[in-house]
Amino acid sequence: MNKIKVGVVGYGTIGKRVADAVLLQPDMELLGVTGRTYSFRMELAKRKKIKIYLTEDGEADKFVENGIQPAGNIHDLLTKADLIVDCTPKKIGAYNKERYYKPYNVKAIFQGGEKHAVGEASFNAFSNYDESIGKKYVRVVSCNTTGMARIIHTINKKWPIKRVIATFIRRAADPGDVKKGPVNAIVPVLDIPSHHGPDVNTVLPGIEIMTMAVAVPTTLMHVHTLAIELKDDTPQKKEIAHLLDKTSRIFLVRQATGVESTAHIMELVRDLYHQRGDVVDNCIWENGMGVVGKHIFLMQAIHQESDVIPENIDCIRAMMNTMSKEESIALTNSTLGIK
Amino acid sequence: MNKIKVGVVGYGTIGKRVADAVLLQPDMELLGVTGRTYSFRMELAKRKKIKIYLTEDGEADKFVENGIQPAGNIHDLLTKADLIVDCTPKKIGAYNKERYYKPYNVKAIFQGGEKHAVGEASFNAFSNYDESIGKKYVRVVSCNTTGMARIIHTINKKWPIKRVIATFIRRAADPGDVKKGPVNAIVPVLDIPSHHGPDVNTVLPGIEIMTMAVAVPTTLMHVHTLAIELKDDTPQKKEIAHLLDKTSRIFLVRQATGVESTAHIMELVRDLYHQRGDVVDNCIWENGMGVVGKHIFLMQAIHQESDVIPENIDCIRAMMNTMSKEESIALTNSTLGIK
Repeated sequence: MNKIKVGVVGYGTIGKRVADAVLLQPDMELLGVTGRTYSFRMELAKRKKIKIYLTEDGEADKFVENGIQPAGNIHDLLTKADLIVDCTPKKIGAYNKERYYKPYNVKAIFQGGEKHAVGEASFNAFSNYDESIGKKYVRVVSCNTTGMARIIHTINKKWPIKRVIATFIRRAADPGDVKKGPVNAIVPVLDIPSHHGPDVNTVLPGIEIMTMAVAVPTTLMHVHTLAIELKDDTPQKKEIAHLLDKTSRIFLVRQATGVESTAHIMELVRDLYHQRGDVVDNCIWENGMGVVGKHIFLMQAIHQESDVIPENIDCIRAMMNTMSKEESIALTNSTLGIK
Repeated sequence: MNKIKVGVVGYGTIGKRVADAVLLQPDMELLGVTGRTYSFRMELAKRKKIKIYLTEDGEADKFVENGIQPAGNIHDLLTKADLIVDCTPKKIGAYNKERYYKPYNVKAIFQGGEKHAVGEASFNAFSNYDESIGKKYVRVVSCNTTGMARIIHTINKKWPIKRVIATFIRRAADPGDVKKGPVNAIVPVLDIPSHHGPDVNTVLPGIEIMTMAVAVPTTLMHVHTLAIELKDDTPQKKEIAHLLDKTSRIFLVRQATGVESTAHIMELVRDLYHQRGDVVDNCIWENGMGVVGKHIFLMQAIHQESDVIPENIDCIRAMMNTMSKEESIALTNSTLGIK
């Protein structure tokens, strides 16, 4: 079987992780990544022996000065690729679609910063893998939406959901993002309900989801509080815990571990030497779950830098139509060391 | 009419503000406050010419060295007072009740850190003023509960409420509290639903309130997200805005002001030279409100250092049975410069 030839455009927080994940897949070949100028990020690609293709405004001389010989430019990458994973900042993906992917007739995945309409479908592996089979342009939903889609899909499959009311407590900035705030304030997202509910509906239609959001001064993880109203009688807390415990990409944080904050989660995964201290799972506190009447209450932490990585890998296979949902999820989980 | 003789035990975040507020009331006399040893807080009392009564373990020599002559000890204060406002840290109030207030047969107000059972009633001026009339021991509910009681009472009176689902995004520490965290993490409150719902029910029984809470790295204010399900048809957003705008102790933050975070609120009230930059009102973002079906969504910021101050003043009058609810709220509002 021919390997899927993958190019990564944009080598930032998401792009570098997608590239590493592609390298671990037996059915994929990483052609390379794009770069504009030399920096510590490009040094990382060099040390990993990942080929670098210059963007149109790329500074070839800066690369050469620093011991990197670019493998070509973005047009060379587009010519060779079966599929591009576009990991550029918000709105650049939609621009790249018109400028590059359409003219080169190459499949492309976009990230959650783009609008739903950028693709023929939005994607979450659990929720709607099959909708992206054979598609040309697909958007993998954002970190927050991925986290919501996973838990809502998992609960809803077993106990049908009437309505979800959620609050997103969002991290202010990623760890390396020194120019963003807030430093000492809570910033409400002043569109009510926030856009996150409709975004979850792009991969999980038909469930009423209403969300509110605030940004807070932390860099580690997002936290979601969910009040899930079920259509019928509610299960016991231990039944919910059992379901989540046996579901992949969900990490049930047990009380006895003493993991009581996002900082504890990050310390735990660093100790377990996951690469970069990433945790791609929804982290759900067992002791932070409760059942009242028909409502399930729970709180989950979402690692904004990494939770979409396995989804990008599964999305590649769906679009190339090389594996079923179950096969792809199993292979991605085993190659990336996910439960 | 004789003025109500008030003593303040504990001169920290709440105590110093209660003392200042008592000084502004035409029907009250501030006998003084308690102090243990000299510090910048006691220097403040000295400069305001507030009498200081030594606690039992008080260091009289430290006061004298720093130019303060204590007016006596706590027993002298207890002998003279009609009512003590106990502003000591959590659990000390319940201890003081047994140790001091019962033996001296003096009325006492406790703060929200104490349990409901410390008093004969819990108090919020809007919600249940009359329950505290003539009572001997009353607890003024916490800053968060005060904020919830005000908004829920206000909405419920006009549009009966079926259920409230709320998330509290709590400030990590008060501005001067350098020993507390988190600095860079989100810490969920791992009892679900959190204790805040039942606490609101101590002043507003009969409304189903389910709450979740997290602590975040900020010192300025708490933020609450509320999903309020009404029993009957829902009003339009502008009707809700109109109701809140004309309700005292609620500050409707208009979009045009550009006040988009707790930091903006704090800067605004500092500019308006409220003492200490306090804002005792629930600050509700007009643009952060929405109506979907029978649900009202809103977000409010609560200044943890000051929102209970007018409630303490009203509670004094209720317990002394000197004024009706409406008279007391009006007098407190006018003396403290509240809308």
